Amino acid sequence: MRILVTGAAGFIGGALLRRLLADATVAEITAIDLAAQPSWSSDPRVRWISGALDAAVLARLGRPSFDRVFHLASVPGARAEAEPVLGRRVNLDASLDLLQWLAGSAHRPRVVYASSIAVYGPLDAAVVSARTEPRPATTYGAHKRMVEIALADHTRRGELSGVSLRLPGIVARPRPVSGFGSAFMSELLHALAAGERYVCPVSAAATCWWLSRTAVVDHLVLAGAAEICGVLQLPALHLSVAGVVEGLGQMFGAERTRLVTYDPDERIEAVFGRYPPLDTRAELALGFHHDGSVAALLSHALAAHDG
Amino acid sequence: MRILVTGAAGFIGGALLRRLLADATVAEITAIDLAAQPSWSSDPRVRWISGALDAAVLARLGRPSFDRVFHLASVPGARAEAEPVLGRRVNLDASLDLLQWLAGSAHRPRVVYASSIAVYGPLDAAVVSARTEPRPATTYGAHKRMVEIALADHTRRGELSGVSLRLPGIVARPRPVSGFGSAFMSELLHALAAGERYVCPVSAAATCWWLSRTAVVDHLVLAGAAEICGVLQLPALHLSVAGVVEGLGQMFGAERTRLVTYDPDERIEAVFGRYPPLDTRAELALGFHHDGSVAALLSHALAAHDG
Repeated sequence: MRILVTGAAGFIGGALLRRLLADATVAEITAIDLAAQPSWSSDPRVRWISGALDAAVLARLGRPSFDRVFHLASVPGARAEAEPVLGRRVNLDASLDLLQWLAGSAHRPRVVYASSIAVYGPLDAAVVSARTEPRPATTYGAHKRMVEIALADHTRRGELSGVSLRLPGIVARPRPVSGFGSAFMSELLHALAAGERYVCPVSAAATCWWLSRTAVVDHLVLAGAAEICGVLQLPALHLSVAGVVEGLGQMFGAERTRLVTYDPDERIEAVFGRYPPLDTRAELALGFHHDGSVAALLSHALAAHDG
Repeated sequence: MRILVTGAAGFIGGALLRRLLADATVAEITAIDLAAQPSWSSDPRVRWISGALDAAVLARLGRPSFDRVFHLASVPGARAEAEPVLGRRVNLDASLDLLQWLAGSAHRPRVVYASSIAVYGPLDAAVVSARTEPRPATTYGAHKRMVEIALADHTRRGELSGVSLRLPGIVARPRPVSGFGSAFMSELLHALAAGERYVCPVSAAATCWWLSRTAVVDHLVLAGAAEICGVLQLPALHLSVAGVVEGLGQMFGAERTRLVTYDPDERIEAVFGRYPPLDTRAELALGFHHDGSVAALLSHALAAHDG
């Protein structure tokens, strides 16, 4: 099996690459990232391309012949909002260039695109599912939605077999967590795990969707092997911050929970702290599972960051 | 008032340009089109740029300072489906380049984008309105939807004041009508007006949305002057082919209706001949009116093509 991974040195990409390298049926992985090849990934099956994903890099690779493609490379939401021209180049144009190049494959490749819950915009529906109409309210979300549409069109044309996975905020991103509005989700976990004080910018009652890197890598691998096309909303635990803090107390001792104080920022609370329940019955039926419990989520989220 | 029109030599663009030139408050019109400047448009207020709409052309124009922009340039649907790379360059990339360039305006310009009913995809809803969820089923429709999203995002950012108008097939395009799946709508009118036989590729019972060029120019001008942002579905008459043929009989004599024979092509009928009713109450309330009657539609549609 020949695989392409973009954003292969990233938080999720690195973990995906480790998982793929553990699979003996994987014959070759082409990995693209701005960053240099991490030492842990030196494996004769890895071809590492260090540089921006653009039409010139793709043209040098010649005609594509991958069985599976995982497209993860992107500029995070807060940075794309502040630098929309950069956001367009990376999150939109480079993605469209990649899809157009892959459309010239001899054999129709399976393409898994890391989309985002940012496509929904205001999360004011009673329940959110992949059928909720996207109304993106950030440039990042607009570009993610546009790429979902382009991937669906290449799939309709028979050139690709594409699926877009809408990822929630994934925990726990390594510190310092920057460029993400949902950074507090990871910062909270790191602080209490380290026994440090944490001033939380959302209230204890704030509700978010929680998913670990371990679980999202499971989802990516499963989506790569599946046949289903279109858009999937990844299942995630729907937990309050208080519920997560309680879980951290059970993991590290109840006294740790006293390290948290709340100083809600109304803007962050409104966008990242009032997530309604998810309806992911269709995805659960396909075998996409969230972490299962707060304890499992925290255990997965705080596993050693070795990627 | 300073105005930019793209696709200014086209079927709709030419008629819009004539209308704008008749308005004494229009101080300057920058007109971009692949075609050379038509002689009828030589007016000291017109700056004609003959060439493809791309980032290089826009850069040469310097910093934009338009009050209103009408973005009409596009590759038609059937051609974009056959040549998706061309379709992307013109219908998507050039549009995004234009919007990004306009976002650098000193004063937030009003932008009217000619989108299309192709964004809806299969017209299998009981009633279609601007609230119907887009599920584009052509590359042309996918690109039009993506530009709608980009325009809405620039508007949300406060850089532009954008509105996307979803145009149905406009009659009567000049002969030969090519590149449009809905070409039969125009061909039927021309043939019967000229007293020629016509083999109709959809049934007499086929229903379409009918709108004349006269009415769509009214809509563009009105949208340019309005404040409303987002997406509007242009009102159109919901008529069967039999109803239109009957109207042509009243216009040219009943014997003309015998010139039509029906040889329905199931593929054309399925995509272009089963349009459900439109719900455009919101747009009608804003002053967007269709032609009003079959007689008025035909009279507008068959007015001399002098643009």
